[in-house]
Parts: sequence; structure tokens; C-alpha cells
Amino acid sequence: MPHHQHQELLKTLHECMAACNHCFDACLKEEDMKMMAECIRLDRECADICAYLEAAITRNSPFVSQLARVCAQICETCAEECRKHDHDHCQECADACMKCAEACRSVA
Amino acid sequence: MPHHQHQELLKTLHECMAACNHCFDACLKEEDMKMMAECIRLDRECADICAYLEAAITRNSPFVSQLARVCAQICETCAEECRKHDHDHCQECADACMKCAEACRSVA
Amino acid sequence: MPHHQHQELLKTLHECMAACNHCFDACLKEEDMKMMAECIRLDRECADICAYLEAAITRNSPFVSQLARVCAQICETCAEECRKHDHDHCQECADACMKCAEACRSVA
Amino acid sequence: MPHHQHQELLKTLHECMAACNHCFDACLKEEDMKMMAECIRLDRECADICAYLEAAITRNSPFVSQLARVCAQICETCAEECRKHDHDHCQECADACMKCAEACRSVA
Repeated sequence: MPHHQHQELLKTLHECMAACNHCFDACLKEEDMKMMAECIRLDRECADICAYLEAAITRNSPFVSQLARVCAQICETCAEECRKHDHDHCQECADACMKCAEACRSVA
Repeated sequence: MPHHQHQELLKTLHECMAACNHCFDACLKEEDMKMMAECIRLDRECADICAYLEAAITRNSPFVSQLARVCAQICETCAEECRKHDHDHCQECADACMKCAEACRSVA
Repeated sequence: MPHHQHQELLKTLHECMAACNHCFDACLKEEDMKMMAECIRLDRECADICAYLEAAITRNSPFVSQLARVCAQICETCAEECRKHDHDHCQECADACMKCAEACRSVA
Repeated sequence: MPHHQHQELLKTLHECMAACNHCFDACLKEEDMKMMAECIRLDRECADICAYLEAAITRNSPFVSQLARVCAQICETCAEECRKHDHDHCQECADACMKCAEACRSVA
């Protein structure tokens, strides 16, 4: 399968998508929701592009490197925002995003 | 994380998405492409709904069971079509779809 | 084009997607964000399924009616939540969702 | 609404998505399907990224310009491939893609 060379990246993208969507869900349940606004917004952006890139890799898209470049940027922005917040889900999301940004850069 | 109870389903959905997208890509490279038309169409349908459900589960969507019902149906239809073709990628896709249909039925 | 019979539905889905995503963005800017939590969650759910169904119709998916049934349900749930809030973007979103739910029911 | 400034772009993206998905469906019904393989592949790529960008614009994504740059590239590649084929759906798709590429370049 053409996407086997990207097996590690697929795993990293999946974990980042899951961490972002979990953070999105958890932020919506926080008491201090107002200060999580940008986190909620960026969690959605990041989860969506990671899922998109995952699918693109598995269908052997000719545009993986261009998409990975955008994905890396979005992951970095989401990581920066999440890092500001002490909630476990935010810190875990920041970690997943940083790891994913690096993995995306390597194929971009 | 709310989606941890669905960890096994997430893995099955991901494998089905990857198998369908790989089969889509491989069908486009076959010599006998004309007879693969419905396979190509259904591979796309099935990969897309599996990716959609995966994302929905991780964001703790209130509509997981309704989406899983549709996903099961699409997986079954794709499995039936793939089963007709001898290519390895079709048979592997049919297996992944059947497994995924069953997993989706269990949460639908 | 096979999707021409669905031209009106496509327009309604697009308007609902746009209204939900606008409401999502606007909710994230409200002062009383905490009380908008479910609205934010459902706006995303509804925008995503409307976009999904729009794409499915244009590619002549064999699963339009099943997807439309789920879409109608999600639109209705989102409409109910939005209706509770006085913000213009919520009321406009509720209107778009109700109209879309009805259109989806007619093809489901 | 933040996306009102992009109203024309949204319309162009929607038309391109619909043209690509119609071309995908129509290619799967052609007798000379084998020579349409790259067209089928690129129709899917292009429809998916147009739908993605449409949604991103309506939710006021901070990444519209980066996504529009990738979208423009994908539209151009799809237009080039479609232009090679005489089928009406291919020529119409090429036109929609060229128009969309230009519109995307203007916000990239």
C-alpha cells in the first residue's frame, strides 16, 4: 500500500485529531469557558485538517506535501494556544499538536 | 476521554477507511478499470463516512449511534461490491468493511 | 447532472451550513459564552453533516436518503438549542436549521 | 457575518465542488473509463478541498489564505487534466476549476 511509508505519520495525525477533539469537548464543559474561546476554535481547525490529511495520505493524494505544510502550521498555532491553559486536556493537546507539527514538517 | 470506550471502534474505522482509500487508489491503476467502477464509487463513500464517524466519536458527538447505523449500511454495501473482485486490495477491503459494519452495528 | 433535481436542497444545505458555522464563530465571541456551550457543539455537528450531505448529493451517492434522515435529526436538534437564545445569529441559525430539516425529510 | 466578504468566493467554490463531483460520477459511467483514471482521482481531490475551504470560510477560520493557496494549486492540476478530455463534463469541470483557482489565488 502506498500509504505504508506514512504509517507513523498516520498514527501521529490520528492521535492529534483525537486530542484536539477531546480538548474541544472538554473545553465546552469547563467553568471558565470564556477564556477557552480560541482553544475551542483552534481545536476544531486542527482536528479537521489532521483528519483531512490522514484521508489524503491513505488515498495516495498527489498533494500530501502541500497539505502537510498547512497542517503543520495549524498544529503549531493550536499547540501555542493550548499551552497557555493549565487543564490536562489542553497540555495533552499541545503535546500532540507539537509532535504532529514536526511529523508534518518532515513530509512537507 | 469520552471516546476511550470507543477505542476499539476507532481502530476498526481507521482500518476500514485506510483499506477503502487504498482500494480506491489501486482500482484506478488496474487494467480492467471499467469493471471496478462501482468499487471505486463505494470505496469513496465508505472511506468518507468512516472518517466522519471517527471524528464524530472523538468530539463526543451526540449523534454517534445514528451515524453508526448509516456507516454500517455503507460498509456492508461496499463489502458486497468488493467481494466480487479477485484483486487482493478488494478482498482485503471487503474484510475490513465487514468487520467495521459489525462494529458499527454494535453501537447503532 | 444527477444532482440537478436536488438543486433546491443543495442551496438549503449550503445556507444551513453557513448559518451554523457563522453562529459557531459568533458564539465564541459572546460574553455569555458559558451558556452557549451546547449551541457551539451543535453548530459544529450541524454544519459538518450539512456539508457532508451536500458533497454526497453532488457525487450522486447511493446513500443520499439515509444521510438525509440523519441530517434532518441533527438539524432539528440544533434548531431547538439555537431557538433558546436571543442572539440574532442563534435565531437565524434556528430558522435555517428548521428549513433544512424539512428539506432533508422530503428526500429521506 | 464575517464570511459575507467572501460571498462570491463561496459561490465559486461550491460550483467547482459540484462540477468536480459531477465529473467524478460521469467518468465512472464512461465506456473509456481507463483513460479517465487521473481525472477521477483529481476530481475527488478538488471537490474535497473546495468543500473544505468553503466550510473554513464560513466558520471564520484563521487559515483561509493558507488553505486557499493549496486549493488553487489543486484546482489548477484538476483543470489541466480535465482539459485533455472531450467529454462535456470534463470541459465544464476544467472551466469551473480555472475560475476557482483564480478566485482562490486572490485571497491566498
